[in-house]
Amino acid sequence: MEQTREKTENKRGEEEERLPVTYEGKWIYDILLESSYDGILEELERIGYKKNIKICIVTDSNVQKVYEETLKSHLLERFDTVKTFVFEAGEKSKTLDTIQKLYEYLIINKFERGDLLLALGGGVVGDMTGYAAATYLRGIDFIQIPTTLLAQVDSSVGGKTGVDFAQYKNMVGAFKQPRLVYINLNVLKSLPEKQFASGMAEALKSGWIQDREYSLFLEKYQKEIQSISYEQIRNTVSGSCRIKRDVVQKDPLEHGERALLNFGHTIGHAIEKLSDFSLYHGECVALGMVAAAQISWKKGNIEKKDLERIEQMLLSYHLPIHLDVELKQKINAKDILSATKSDKKMENGQIKFVLLQEIGKAYLSRDISDEMLLDGIHYILD
Amino acid sequence: MEQTREKTENKRGEEEERLPVTYEGKWIYDILLESSYDGILEELERIGYKKNIKICIVTDSNVQKVYEETLKSHLLERFDTVKTFVFEAGEKSKTLDTIQKLYEYLIINKFERGDLLLALGGGVVGDMTGYAAATYLRGIDFIQIPTTLLAQVDSSVGGKTGVDFAQYKNMVGAFKQPRLVYINLNVLKSLPEKQFASGMAEALKSGWIQDREYSLFLEKYQKEIQSISYEQIRNTVSGSCRIKRDVVQKDPLEHGERALLNFGHTIGHAIEKLSDFSLYHGECVALGMVAAAQISWKKGNIEKKDLERIEQMLLSYHLPIHLDVELKQKINAKDILSATKSDKKMENGQIKFVLLQEIGKAYLSRDISDEMLLDGIHYILD
Repeated sequence: MEQTREKTENKRGEEEERLPVTYEGKWIYDILLESSYDGILEELERIGYKKNIKICIVTDSNVQKVYEETLKSHLLERFDTVKTFVFEAGEKSKTLDTIQKLYEYLIINKFERGDLLLALGGGVVGDMTGYAAATYLRGIDFIQIPTTLLAQVDSSVGGKTGVDFAQYKNMVGAFKQPRLVYINLNVLKSLPEKQFASGMAEALKSGWIQDREYSLFLEKYQKEIQSISYEQIRNTVSGSCRIKRDVVQKDPLEHGERALLNFGHTIGHAIEKLSDFSLYHGECVALGMVAAAQISWKKGNIEKKDLERIEQMLLSYHLPIHLDVELKQKINAKDILSATKSDKKMENGQIKFVLLQEIGKAYLSRDISDEMLLDGIHYILD
Repeated sequence: MEQTREKTENKRGEEEERLPVTYEGKWIYDILLESSYDGILEELERIGYKKNIKICIVTDSNVQKVYEETLKSHLLERFDTVKTFVFEAGEKSKTLDTIQKLYEYLIINKFERGDLLLALGGGVVGDMTGYAAATYLRGIDFIQIPTTLLAQVDSSVGGKTGVDFAQYKNMVGAFKQPRLVYINLNVLKSLPEKQFASGMAEALKSGWIQDREYSLFLEKYQKEIQSISYEQIRNTVSGSCRIKRDVVQKDPLEHGERALLNFGHTIGHAIEKLSDFSLYHGECVALGMVAAAQISWKKGNIEKKDLERIEQMLLSYHLPIHLDVELKQKINAKDILSATKSDKKMENGQIKFVLLQEIGKAYLSRDISDEMLLDGIHYILD
């Protein structure tokens, strides 16, 4: 696996891995892979934050219990003011109401433009903190400290921020790049199995749309990855971050190629919404990828054995390839189709749908008929 | 008055004036000065909007009555879908609640990323439409069609968008550049006198902070400008747009020089808030400029006669230089000081305050004491 990455030693004599993110040749921020939170002060100093700025850790009720104290004690070694804003864990909190409570908290604590938000948590925490950072005082800095595999391999990179609105996922949002993505890989050791699987869906996606070699790596080292072997989990996270970085730095505002990252997400988001968020994001993406792979096969792009291989890999990472019995009673194919077509990924009333050309190469299709979509949807319902 | 502007003839044989706005050498959008709405289709075509995109005119209850029909009938000559979202006129509507109603309206009408919002109205309409455009689906296009002098000379240019939050003006917002600023100068003929005066405060500010020649022009042609002589009102609007453009294209995100545009706004915003928005924005800025000019005189930057000249010009344009008796009973100097210091323009707890070096040249001061601020505030209270 060829990597455009840098392995260096930090001041504590440990090997670290750093992926710089650029735009039009200019450095924007680093993605840093570490084994603890010990390096956070060194990084904040490197970016240039002075000790008199105010820091607000934004986190949810689950993550707060586990990591806030460690992180805060590091920060207090250098910074005078470190506050914490906690909201209730779960997608249900991802609303403008929670954002408004955060604005109030920042106003009361006199946060100014030069101050800093830290997103400590999974995708919901990262999306919301980024959105608040994009809109408070017309924009202040924020840093991603992702604590789930999903956030580490996907959502913390690329600057998409947002909240759900009136049942529409990420309907309200902004593009806002973080100043740093600080990944502590060791937090994955205590991640619940379902959440780990959810993150793997995005990692698998990265390989399938863009990098055959990476998907072969995920196949070959499946056992080591699932037992969180440090070396292989680092290769998993850095491989996925690198693929995502390469895509988003060419197309940060999703005018073109970036849309390929939505492989599995169009039908996936529809299922997520209709299941009322009872499934994990990655589980919905897995189902969406199976449907999209089935359509890719029907169109003659990939072979039957490729489709089966995709299904096999999802199963081996404990991800669903069919909707479970309970949900099948609540959700039918037509509802999924209709929700799919009210997603953001529409252009002049026509759906933009990501298909596979082959394993490791995706493309954007604008001519998928309702029949083909329904066929793919039925495939995961049967 | 030296102008970096372009006078051309449009397809209808009329003279138009076009100010291109660039950033790092790249064209971003044009500011177009016209005498009617007849040219809007030509412009939308020039930008490249196809007839099947959806357009939503966003306007307030006052402006809707006067200009919506004309504008809409032009748009319907080319575009299939033209919707209008109307909210109640006034700063009281400038909230996230109104923005959420607009999101809902756009979702119900299936607005997508390639669609377009038109801000038809004054500063409140422009700020809110821009903010919705910045955050709906992580950003869609919008166009400014300012109908007040204030919006034409100031708020429609430069990409500051936002809403008020918990009594704090523009506390929540984003930088989002429009795709076009289309100015119909003839709407100024029916503008109420107080609103005209309010806009002139920002025009006067432009001259005082950046362009002595422009301020001399506003002095010399005061009578013609106030009687809305077309030639001189065009020079007024284009002169002010040009000054603002030159400042913001060098510093779009207000890291430095752009802050000079806040001359008169720090104390001005405090008065605006404490008066519960009973004064016009320009009236508050006028008071704030008198206070800031008094401090500039006390610091020995400008002479007494410069301060008097500033006051004289404000009076000649029907702007206040002292707080009126009624408000003086409600608001005291200490309240103004305290509100001033809770404004956004703080840096590490120290206020950033714009002073005049001379008429036509402003600078950012970071060492203004509370005593000096109070002295300036007392000056406009006495």
